[in-house]
Amino acid sequence: LRVVLVQCRNPLNIGAAARAMANFGFGHLRVVEPYDVAFRQARSAVAAEPVLAAAQECASVAEAVADCALVVGTAEGRGRSPHAPLERLEAVTAEMLEALRGGAKVAVLFGSEKKGLSNQALSRCQRVLRIPTEDAQPSMNLGQAVAVVLYELARVGNPAPLREAAALASAADRERLIALLAEMVERSDERDASGPAPEETMRRLLRRFPLTGSEAREWMGVVRRVLRKLRGETGRA
Amino acid sequence: LRVVLVQCRNPLNIGAAARAMANFGFGHLRVVEPYDVAFRQARSAVAAEPVLAAAQECASVAEAVADCALVVGTAEGRGRSPHAPLERLEAVTAEMLEALRGGAKVAVLFGSEKKGLSNQALSRCQRVLRIPTEDAQPSMNLGQAVAVVLYELARVGNPAPLREAAALASAADRERLIALLAEMVERSDERDASGPAPEETMRRLLRRFPLTGSEAREWMGVVRRVLRKLRGETGRA
Repeated sequence: LRVVLVQCRNPLNIGAAARAMANFGFGHLRVVEPYDVAFRQARSAVAAEPVLAAAQECASVAEAVADCALVVGTAEGRGRSPHAPLERLEAVTAEMLEALRGGAKVAVLFGSEKKGLSNQALSRCQRVLRIPTEDAQPSMNLGQAVAVVLYELARVGNPAPLREAAALASAADRERLIALLAEMVERSDERDASGPAPEETMRRLLRRFPLTGSEAREWMGVVRRVLRKLRGETGRA
Repeated sequence: LRVVLVQCRNPLNIGAAARAMANFGFGHLRVVEPYDVAFRQARSAVAAEPVLAAAQECASVAEAVADCALVVGTAEGRGRSPHAPLERLEAVTAEMLEALRGGAKVAVLFGSEKKGLSNQALSRCQRVLRIPTEDAQPSMNLGQAVAVVLYELARVGNPAPLREAAALASAADRERLIALLAEMVERSDERDASGPAPEETMRRLLRRFPLTGSEAREWMGVVRRVLRKLRGETGRA
């Protein structure tokens, strides 16, 4: 993937784009006609990304996309492009990933902060995507727009597990905790003998809690301390 | 939804968070212990969002989330939280939307630029989400992280059509264009009579092009001009 910033004016935005690229694992940045000062400032920033140091400077959009098989432009949610129907980010993401997996180079173009991509630049795009923003405030900050587009590529392209595995308590852990809680209730309370058994009540109360294994063990520790007290086993000599 | 920024230091980031909120249609910003100067600078920025003017300042995380039924923290991709298993953004999004649709208030907390959320703040979170960043560079810019989280909520919560409707050419438009192209080929070429009919060739060549209605009409205009020339109807007196 080639991230192409066209006529970007603000060094903070160039830096932000490079940071988002590092966050989501993309390394190839191209800048077209940047404001010289902005580009130099961004590069010399203390926390500049290696991505930025390796950025290529291009004289024109044509040069920046010449080796790319799929060229994707970005436009505001509101605008209608005369060049290609606007498609939502998700719709274009799949196609970009497919081209990348097939070994093709893909360029995604972002325009200047004030005006976006020119018609001349858009005319070189096979697809034009929009981020689904509100009509009342469609125009995104450049660095944020880059982050959202790259997030979407990472999200769809890398379907990692949604949760850390191995974290949840096993049924056996849960049952041990329930048994301890039930004993605690039985020892502490003049309970209503006609009601449900304490074990049942505790099982119902815990049922929907997504307890992790370490949480279950912590709870067992707490309840055991209470139980020792209730049993008169204070452990102090 | 309440977007809660905890101990944010950089006025640009507060402004960027407010801008992303406006982009994706969220209006309630709360800031906890901001650097006073940063908050005042962000509010007085020329292009400050109305979101920012309406922001509530809170003395503590507890105060900022007191009226919320679901409190969600954010953490770096790399970190393991001692408080709750980290879940990917998408996994938590569905739950947040469900709570919001049920009329509950939901808080999503973002920590300071340097250190993220403190353990004390995380201990108030029922869920902790992470944006799926690279292990080599997990830490996102604050404004970009807010944009990505709100984008995900807007994407899942508002499944609008992926493409502008009505843009694609009808089969009838395509057939008219194919007929004109076939006539152009027949008139211009000493074609191989044993090959497929020009109409067939043109239909095959156009088949996979996602022509819009207006593009089809433009092409027809072009081909008609060529045909007039080929027919000797130059139209000039």
